[in-house]
Amino acid sequence: MNIAIYGYGNLGRGVECAVQQNADMSLVGIFTRRDPASVKTLYNTPVYPAAEIDTFADRIDVLILCGGSATDLPEMTPALSRRFNVVDSYDTHATIPAHFEKTDKAAREGGHIALISCGWDPGMFSLNRLYAGVLLPDGKDYTFWGRGVSQGHSDAIRRIDGVLDARQYTVPVAESLEAVRSGSMPELTTREKHRRECYVVVAEGADKAAIEQQIKTMPNYFADYDTTVTFITQEELDRDHRGIPHGGFVIRTGKTGVDNCHTHTIEYRLQLDSNPEFTASVLVAYARAVDRLSKRGVTGCKTVFDIAPADLSPLSAEELRATLL
Amino acid sequence: MNIAIYGYGNLGRGVECAVQQNADMSLVGIFTRRDPASVKTLYNTPVYPAAEIDTFADRIDVLILCGGSATDLPEMTPALSRRFNVVDSYDTHATIPAHFEKTDKAAREGGHIALISCGWDPGMFSLNRLYAGVLLPDGKDYTFWGRGVSQGHSDAIRRIDGVLDARQYTVPVAESLEAVRSGSMPELTTREKHRRECYVVVAEGADKAAIEQQIKTMPNYFADYDTTVTFITQEELDRDHRGIPHGGFVIRTGKTGVDNCHTHTIEYRLQLDSNPEFTASVLVAYARAVDRLSKRGVTGCKTVFDIAPADLSPLSAEELRATLL
Repeated sequence: MNIAIYGYGNLGRGVECAVQQNADMSLVGIFTRRDPASVKTLYNTPVYPAAEIDTFADRIDVLILCGGSATDLPEMTPALSRRFNVVDSYDTHATIPAHFEKTDKAAREGGHIALISCGWDPGMFSLNRLYAGVLLPDGKDYTFWGRGVSQGHSDAIRRIDGVLDARQYTVPVAESLEAVRSGSMPELTTREKHRRECYVVVAEGADKAAIEQQIKTMPNYFADYDTTVTFITQEELDRDHRGIPHGGFVIRTGKTGVDNCHTHTIEYRLQLDSNPEFTASVLVAYARAVDRLSKRGVTGCKTVFDIAPADLSPLSAEELRATLL
Repeated sequence: MNIAIYGYGNLGRGVECAVQQNADMSLVGIFTRRDPASVKTLYNTPVYPAAEIDTFADRIDVLILCGGSATDLPEMTPALSRRFNVVDSYDTHATIPAHFEKTDKAAREGGHIALISCGWDPGMFSLNRLYAGVLLPDGKDYTFWGRGVSQGHSDAIRRIDGVLDARQYTVPVAESLEAVRSGSMPELTTREKHRRECYVVVAEGADKAAIEQQIKTMPNYFADYDTTVTFITQEELDRDHRGIPHGGFVIRTGKTGVDNCHTHTIEYRLQLDSNPEFTASVLVAYARAVDRLSKRGVTGCKTVFDIAPADLSPLSAEELRATLL
C-alpha cells in the first residue's frame, strides 16, 4: 500500500513515523507548499512540491492530509478527493456535516474515497460514544479531555502583553470523573468538568498580578473554569513542558433490567505522550481501510462510523477470529 | 424489526428487557424447549414451543440464540442459521474458528446471516483488542476480568463435599493493573493478573479447614491463584452475593515516534451490575446490524469485527455525524 503525506508539520511527521510501524505500507513521498529543499524529513522520505502532486496520481493509493482544520482542510479535502483517496483529521465538530457534504460530492465525482474527521476526537472518542450509546440506550455519556496541552489556550495566553511563552493544560476534575463512574448521571457545569493549568513565562518587569488576572477573566477561554497560573522561566518551560501530551475519557453509564435495577459503566480512556503522533497512528490505520474499500469499488465520503473494524487490520479475517476474538 | 428469543434463562430474560429499550424493535415471542405454560415472562411476551419455530419463519427478522456454549450453541447456531438470521454469544474462544466454519456454511446455504460470539468477551473486549492493536502496532495488550462472578468457579466449589453453596469472584490485581497502565509492558503470571475470592456456605459440622485447603489447591481453578476463602451463612450469601456482576479491562500500551520515544495507553473498562443483561444488550444492538445487512443481501457467518459501527445505531448516518462525531 503506497501512502503519501500532504503537509509536513507535527501531524505529518507523526504519519511518517507511523508508516514505519506498518509492514504493509510504504511512503511515496511528502508533499509540501514550502520549498522542498528546506524540509528535512525523519526517515529520508523524498519531498516534493505540493503543486506537482497530480503527476503522482497513479503511484499513490492513499493520500494523508496533514493540514489544519481552520483554513487548510475545508479547501484541501474536497479538492484532493477528486483525484486521490484521502484521509483527513478535520476536527471542527460543528461544521463536520458541511465538510462531509462538500467532500462527498467531490469524491463521488472523482471516483475516490475520502475518510474525514479521523483521529481521537473526532475519531476514537466518537466511536466509543456510538458503541456505548447503542449498548446502553437508557443512559448518559460524558467526554472529558486531558490531562493535555491545548494549543489554542496556550496561544491565547501568548497574545497577552508581557507574556513571552506559555503552556496550558486542560485537566479533568477528578471528583466529577468519580461521580460519573458511579452511575449517578450528574449534570455537570463547564467548571465542574475541567480545570485549566497555565505555565507562563513573562518579560522582566512585567506585572504578574495583572497578567494572572487577565488570563483568569478571559471570556470563553478561562473565565468559566477554575484556572491556576504558575509563572516559570523559559528554561523551566523548555525543560518540563516541551511535550504535547493529551488524552481523556469517554464514559457512559446506563441502566438495564426490570425497573432499570442494574447500572453499568463503560469507560474508554486515552493517555497519550504525543497528541500528533497518536492522531497520525489513527490516520494510518484508517488509510488501510480506505485502500481496501477503494479496491472494492466504494466511493464517496466516509467517517470512522462507516468502517468495519476488520478492515483496519493487516491480519486476515481468519487470523483475527483465531487470535483476537 | 421483529426479534425472537430462543432459550429463556438469564440471557433470554436480559434480551427480553433490552428489546424494551429499543423503540425500533418488537418481540415476536420466546421459544423454549420447556413446556411454554410453565414459563413466566417479564413483559408478557408470548411463549411458544421451540419445535414450532419454523412456522414463524416469515415473522422473525432476527432470532437471538440464548443457549449455552458448551452443548446448545454448537448445534443450535448452524441448524437455525439455515432458516433464520441469528445472533449468538458463543464464548469458547479456542473453538470459535470451528464454530464459524460450520455456521458459515449453513448460513450461506440458507441465505441468512449468523453473527456469532457476540457479547463483551468475546465481543466488545475483542473489538477493543483489535482497535488498540491497529492504533499501536508496536505494543502489548492485556485483558483483565473482574471484579465479577465466575459461574464455573462457583460451581467447582459447590461440588466439594460439605459445601452447600458458594460464590466466587475473579478480581484483577490492582498493582498489576497499575504496572500495565504505566507502559512498562510487564510479563505477568496467572497469579499476578487475578486473584480469587470465595464465599462459601458449608453444612453444619463440616471441616472448614479441609474445605479451604481443597479449594485453594484445586488444579486449574484455584491452585495457580492467590485465593481467599470466607465462610458465611446461606442468609449472608443470599443477601450480599445475589447479583451477577462482572466486567474488566482491555489495556494496550505502545510506542510511537523516532526511537519509540513516546508511550501511549488505551484502556477500555466495563463495570457491569448484571453480566447477562449487558451481554443481552450487546446481542440486541448487533441484531439491528444483522437485519440491515440481511436486507442488503449479505449472507454467511459474521463477527463483531465485520460490522461497521453505524449499522448498530437506530440513528441515520446524518444524525450520527451531527451528534456523535
